[in-house]
Amino acid sequence: MQQPLFRLLVAFMLCVATSLVVAQAKPANDPLPSWNDSPTKSAIINFVERVTKPGSADFVPVAERIATFDNDGTLWSEKPVYFQLLFALDRVRAMAPEHPRWKHTEPFKSVIAGDMKGVMATGKEGLAKIVAASHTGMTGAQFKATVHDWLASAKHPTKGVLYTKLVYQPMLELLDYLRANGFKTFIVSGGGMDFVRVFSERVYGIPPEQVVGSTLGAKFEMRDGIPIIVKTAELVLVDDKAGKPVGIYRHIGRQPIFGAGNSDGDLQMLQYTTIPRSSKDTTPRFGIIIHHTDAVREWAYDRKSPVGRLDKALDQAQQRGWYVVDMKEDWNQIYPDVK
Amino acid sequence: MQQPLFRLLVAFMLCVATSLVVAQAKPANDPLPSWNDSPTKSAIINFVERVTKPGSADFVPVAERIATFDNDGTLWSEKPVYFQLLFALDRVRAMAPEHPRWKHTEPFKSVIAGDMKGVMATGKEGLAKIVAASHTGMTGAQFKATVHDWLASAKHPTKGVLYTKLVYQPMLELLDYLRANGFKTFIVSGGGMDFVRVFSERVYGIPPEQVVGSTLGAKFEMRDGIPIIVKTAELVLVDDKAGKPVGIYRHIGRQPIFGAGNSDGDLQMLQYTTIPRSSKDTTPRFGIIIHHTDAVREWAYDRKSPVGRLDKALDQAQQRGWYVVDMKEDWNQIYPDVK
Repeated sequence: MQQPLFRLLVAFMLCVATSLVVAQAKPANDPLPSWNDSPTKSAIINFVERVTKPGSADFVPVAERIATFDNDGTLWSEKPVYFQLLFALDRVRAMAPEHPRWKHTEPFKSVIAGDMKGVMATGKEGLAKIVAASHTGMTGAQFKATVHDWLASAKHPTKGVLYTKLVYQPMLELLDYLRANGFKTFIVSGGGMDFVRVFSERVYGIPPEQVVGSTLGAKFEMRDGIPIIVKTAELVLVDDKAGKPVGIYRHIGRQPIFGAGNSDGDLQMLQYTTIPRSSKDTTPRFGIIIHHTDAVREWAYDRKSPVGRLDKALDQAQQRGWYVVDMKEDWNQIYPDVK
Repeated sequence: MQQPLFRLLVAFMLCVATSLVVAQAKPANDPLPSWNDSPTKSAIINFVERVTKPGSADFVPVAERIATFDNDGTLWSEKPVYFQLLFALDRVRAMAPEHPRWKHTEPFKSVIAGDMKGVMATGKEGLAKIVAASHTGMTGAQFKATVHDWLASAKHPTKGVLYTKLVYQPMLELLDYLRANGFKTFIVSGGGMDFVRVFSERVYGIPPEQVVGSTLGAKFEMRDGIPIIVKTAELVLVDDKAGKPVGIYRHIGRQPIFGAGNSDGDLQMLQYTTIPRSSKDTTPRFGIIIHHTDAVREWAYDRKSPVGRLDKALDQAQQRGWYVVDMKEDWNQIYPDVK
């Protein structure tokens, strides 16, 4: 073959190959390597292939490929208690020197003394005071910086690593796989929206505008000529249980076709995501529940756990056709590169 | 040239051309053909070229290319009054037969009689009742269907065309141009979020999850085994004036770099978008105000108009470096294909 023709041919092949990659965003052979072969893994892949196949009866346009994920217990661990509560307790301790009266008033007294039983005894009212002290009164930017610094330094009490290391490798792969197939991935968390937004982009590849969560008030001010947002204690949305579909309706404005959760807090989100609105609606839908069954590598809990209780949603899984992930059996790796 | 070589060459050229289109999404020669040459048009193009040029000091990563647009008076007309109010009045009239008592109670009596002075005399309280009657008590899906049907049939009182024909061609081009350059375009409207979402995707190419607006309550219910959202009268957000930065903070979670408005209702959004937070922040930012100066093709109004009043924001434009579009001079076409 002549040299110029050969070079042209090579350039052509390369170009065709590049176009294919650009056009198809083909997954690697196994898009979910941390998932053991199981009916759940096959069902995920089958679902994604069906909704993305042009011309198929199950095809779903890209704009409607909305996937919603709970955060605590679904994308990262939630034991011994929700990590955001640990952040709040750490904040109260860090702020204590500026609030000398806290030494004598609950729930702060117990927080400062490290007396968790005492904190719990103050109930919902005490918890609300802890949240208000640690999450309101500052600007949005100040809160963000505080969470950022905490995530960069605080270690999990028993695992001894940064909290952002306690995300589930199989779920990171699932998020990537869905996005590579045109899905828009959202977090719909009972946790605080502002809290999750600090790390969602870096850790999960989910930008702040795709994070829905429990929401406190905010007000706009011009302070010394600078526009700022001040966080206030008004309760705008408890994005848990029946609040999750409300958060989805408000922030996304359409019915997702894929939902992932791990507790009864996700029951209504899974219902909202997977139940057809009419007999005419044949859109494929997928619901998945992460069942914490691995006491060695992670934690094992369900119906009786005060954190992440999975009871009613587990009962409904079979009736609704939701897949239940057995963490111990289905995942060959839990966390990414934990040392 | 030999035939096979020729065919290979043609295939190669075609392939290269396709790749270029895919890779660069190059705008046509003039990305804003409905905009006359002007300092504003040059400034828009210059801004987009600066923030998208890799390696330049002004480069902004794709994830941070957030652009926010007001709707009424910025993307479509708003005279004689906001179109959503006309929808609400039409709804009250359509619902009147089911509510016989409305004939004798304000503000419904005046609405039914077509007495706009009487409606206005009922003030904010009357307006709230009209909004509640027309926007709450039904499911989200029912509301959406009602707006959809109204937009497909109702005609503007003086222009005599569907309301969705009264969008601004130059702004459609601007939205397209920004998106072709990696911007994520959002609507931040004083109007109702649920109302705007019905047509935003079809008309503006903006999906529901990128529409922020004034928000009423919503609650989740299972009704006959079907999950539904019921619209309630709770006021969640008045997304106007100081409420706009709050809406942006809540729904987007980061500072936009491009903001477009037309009235004092957009003042705080423009401040929030364009004012640097510190002397270290040198990110390029762009603010633009649509000034309604065309009494022949559209409407001419500003400081004294009860709808879309532009007074304080016009005063601040020069100080803040916001560009003011002179609709009459700067736009060679107002609406797309109005017959």
